[in-house]
Amino acid sequence: MAYNLLKGKKGIIFGALNNMSIAWKVAEKAYEEGAEFILTNAPVAMRFGEINELAKACNTEVVSADASKLEDIENLFEIAEKKYGKIDFILHSIGMSLNVRKGLKYDELNYDYYHKTMDISAMSFHRVIQVAKQKDIMNEWGSIVALTYVAAQRTLFRYNDMADAKAMLESIARSFGYIYGREKKVRINTISQSPTMTTAGSGVKGIDNLLDFTDRMSPLGNATAEECADYCITLFSDLTKKVTMQNLFHDGGFSNMGMSERAMTVYNKSLEQE
Amino acid sequence: MAYNLLKGKKGIIFGALNNMSIAWKVAEKAYEEGAEFILTNAPVAMRFGEINELAKACNTEVVSADASKLEDIENLFEIAEKKYGKIDFILHSIGMSLNVRKGLKYDELNYDYYHKTMDISAMSFHRVIQVAKQKDIMNEWGSIVALTYVAAQRTLFRYNDMADAKAMLESIARSFGYIYGREKKVRINTISQSPTMTTAGSGVKGIDNLLDFTDRMSPLGNATAEECADYCITLFSDLTKKVTMQNLFHDGGFSNMGMSERAMTVYNKSLEQE
Amino acid sequence: MAYNLLKGKKGIIFGALNNMSIAWKVAEKAYEEGAEFILTNAPVAMRFGEINELAKACNTEVVSADASKLEDIENLFEIAEKKYGKIDFILHSIGMSLNVRKGLKYDELNYDYYHKTMDISAMSFHRVIQVAKQKDIMNEWGSIVALTYVAAQRTLFRYNDMADAKAMLESIARSFGYIYGREKKVRINTISQSPTMTTAGSGVKGIDNLLDFTDRMSPLGNATAEECADYCITLFSDLTKKVTMQNLFHDGGFSNMGMSERAMTVYNKSLEQE
Amino acid sequence: MAYNLLKGKKGIIFGALNNMSIAWKVAEKAYEEGAEFILTNAPVAMRFGEINELAKACNTEVVSADASKLEDIENLFEIAEKKYGKIDFILHSIGMSLNVRKGLKYDELNYDYYHKTMDISAMSFHRVIQVAKQKDIMNEWGSIVALTYVAAQRTLFRYNDMADAKAMLESIARSFGYIYGREKKVRINTISQSPTMTTAGSGVKGIDNLLDFTDRMSPLGNATAEECADYCITLFSDLTKKVTMQNLFHDGGFSNMGMSERAMTVYNKSLEQE
Repeated sequence: MAYNLLKGKKGIIFGALNNMSIAWKVAEKAYEEGAEFILTNAPVAMRFGEINELAKACNTEVVSADASKLEDIENLFEIAEKKYGKIDFILHSIGMSLNVRKGLKYDELNYDYYHKTMDISAMSFHRVIQVAKQKDIMNEWGSIVALTYVAAQRTLFRYNDMADAKAMLESIARSFGYIYGREKKVRINTISQSPTMTTAGSGVKGIDNLLDFTDRMSPLGNATAEECADYCITLFSDLTKKVTMQNLFHDGGFSNMGMSERAMTVYNKSLEQE
Repeated sequence: MAYNLLKGKKGIIFGALNNMSIAWKVAEKAYEEGAEFILTNAPVAMRFGEINELAKACNTEVVSADASKLEDIENLFEIAEKKYGKIDFILHSIGMSLNVRKGLKYDELNYDYYHKTMDISAMSFHRVIQVAKQKDIMNEWGSIVALTYVAAQRTLFRYNDMADAKAMLESIARSFGYIYGREKKVRINTISQSPTMTTAGSGVKGIDNLLDFTDRMSPLGNATAEECADYCITLFSDLTKKVTMQNLFHDGGFSNMGMSERAMTVYNKSLEQE
Repeated sequence: MAYNLLKGKKGIIFGALNNMSIAWKVAEKAYEEGAEFILTNAPVAMRFGEINELAKACNTEVVSADASKLEDIENLFEIAEKKYGKIDFILHSIGMSLNVRKGLKYDELNYDYYHKTMDISAMSFHRVIQVAKQKDIMNEWGSIVALTYVAAQRTLFRYNDMADAKAMLESIARSFGYIYGREKKVRINTISQSPTMTTAGSGVKGIDNLLDFTDRMSPLGNATAEECADYCITLFSDLTKKVTMQNLFHDGGFSNMGMSERAMTVYNKSLEQE
Repeated sequence: MAYNLLKGKKGIIFGALNNMSIAWKVAEKAYEEGAEFILTNAPVAMRFGEINELAKACNTEVVSADASKLEDIENLFEIAEKKYGKIDFILHSIGMSLNVRKGLKYDELNYDYYHKTMDISAMSFHRVIQVAKQKDIMNEWGSIVALTYVAAQRTLFRYNDMADAKAMLESIARSFGYIYGREKKVRINTISQSPTMTTAGSGVKGIDNLLDFTDRMSPLGNATAEECADYCITLFSDLTKKVTMQNLFHDGGFSNMGMSERAMTVYNKSLEQE
């Protein structure tokens, strides 16, 4: 069911890899809600080619851009500007850790990789916003959203240096939210989403059991990628104009749970068998 | 502009006093978005009669209920049940401190009044939810929202025992959000709104200058009652189904500011003249 | 090992029931560190008589006081004043819920009991501070501490209305911390302690397994009552003069954990056997 | 007045520049409390030579180390190991932003400088801990502390990319606090200190007026460097063994204030004159 919440709005969506991606779902919903947008992802991510299907379904195009390269982002915004004039929303759904990929634990980090994690997963958000502001491409009351995870507040084993990247990402949303809000009325927020079975997520060892735990801890269960896309739409819409600099949990309640009866029941069963 | 976001949804709205009230604006917006609802307020608040105009404009009725009386709330829900069967949303916008009214400071509280503050401003929220749950009147994925203020986290002089009431109110949202979510998929959240020039607010000494300060601190300025109503609509809609147990700041960014250039400029001017 | 950290300091300690109580351990440590203090508890709690042993060991006396009665607290402070003149520290370790005792769940609360929970577990803290301030009994840079629990921030099933009481308690620490700090340089904080096997705790159904979970979640394991007493001493000492209005977690790290490997291992074992 | 709180403890203190530095005060207090330690700072910071006076007063030596260079930190720990065997505490008081120094605003950052800010001000903390852990140089129940600032949570104009660095620093304390606690019982915390008139601070434009504001906002006034040193001592002592992964505000209450009467009075004066 669509409401025309984004009718006439233009945007840029970073990070759609395939139909498990949250960014993919956001694109589909934004299209349904009347938005026009450019899709973008890193050249390496685009090799798989699925994003072109999405572009076709959303009647748009894909512009390749490496979010760690300033010139790529500048080029992307120039294309957007030519196409739309000013834009109204941006979704940032980008994160990657070479330390995780290479199996380096948090107490044996490679510092070059650590810098790369921060660069790709956090500074890329600053880069996108800085270029947008310098080109003055956002309309007043535009909305910028990045996806994050509760690991920025609470440590989860194996999440590794991505926790630090998410903490920095959320800090950028506050720091730049102040400046961009003050000068151009643009709002910047992060959505802290339940762990989600995306391609990135499905590669993590033990993700199934962690999802079981968070699902039983959350009174409403884990939030899906589709539901996250719905929530993004509200943040891009005109109904949330005064929400800025916030980290918004979209997680079925997990973030404010200490222990649920359902999760404890599973835990207890194991204890009883000892 | 309306989107039909609440088409077919039924609800109850507590706390509309006059057209400065946030609950009043929520009623107007909810009506525009296709909802049906009952308006309710305390008998004493209804003496002024303005709420009847609102009821007429929203094609509905007013049911008097004192939120500190269990039987009043039970009666209200019975009327709602007869009218709608099940309902989808509830707004709680109720708060009052006799200590504030009587000019008693926080270090000279009357403890009977203190209990009343907690009863009216916080426990009433529990009472509403408990009765709703016992009568099983909410549809699955229903949404309950209460209005709160940043004083629950950060002390503001003169806000007095209302700060403690708001802290308890937000705790109730978490405690009951867990249970109602787990059992009936109902979500419960609070919106922490900018200080607002309602009838209640306008009676507070020094409110003008405080509003000036918060406005200059907030990159997007203070949020208005209308904007708060817009935000409520998103929380009642189907687009935020997995958001629960949260306290959501709707304040132009104030909550995450330490000091803004605009506010500091005013402050500095005074210092320079010393 | 003792350091004379509280040499010459006088105080009042609320809530020592028996040698499992945190307040009991605080009394022992405070005595070791050179403090003098009055012990106090509710008349009903004193019937068991063990607190007299503690008084003997600490070379002091016990004054019975019901923290829900203003006149009892006034009487207590008058005795303290005669004995010490001004005092330097107060420990508040008081909490009780009739709803919990009577087995009423959070969605079937008795509202008279709910008021009692708030009165005994939270407002008693306000009462103690208000009387202290009105009698001007605290020395400058005095320190007031109350014990609390993470349920104030994160919902744990079965903790019931005590979660709301702890949220209110922590709010009182902020609200009064501002006023008492501003006017008399007195600091007020809460310590959020690991779940602890006190007499109160040991009556809670399923507490053993919850303690197992929190222990495995916390990198340093659960904090004991003795360790909590050590921490209290630092907050009563002159080394923490500028710490106020804070809620300080003393929990082996639990509060900032999302999931630990040790806890997940137990959880996984149960899943594998399904 | 000294308590022998650190008798027999060994440590390393990073970041003492001159007698305005917090690290300098920590060294003095730690020495008074019976600790032995090595002082260290970056080669460039040592050129001024004042740290040698401190070393003499504390009967110790200075080891030059650039915290952005792994080999420097490894060398430092080897010297410490030869001297002490295992150590008990580490203070990290390091921060620097080339963007700030060069006058680049947050919406015109140089990304190489941004990486340097993160490297020096945040990753250096990880580097120190990783090397300590790999060399297994910390005794069980050792304590690691870094200094941070409330800008990690709340935006202050002009604090620039240091806000993001402090957010990352605090995240590292959590992430590594989990691992180091779990494996070696070492605790890791950050102290979030009032703005302080150090050499670094005194160079910031408008710092005087900001200090006036935070002082009037804080019920106990701004915390001094000496007071911060006292607080550090408690965190290095055996009395805080179960405190880990925490960010601890040492700020006279500022962090939990929304608005104080004293600050508002100054603000109002300026408004009245408009």
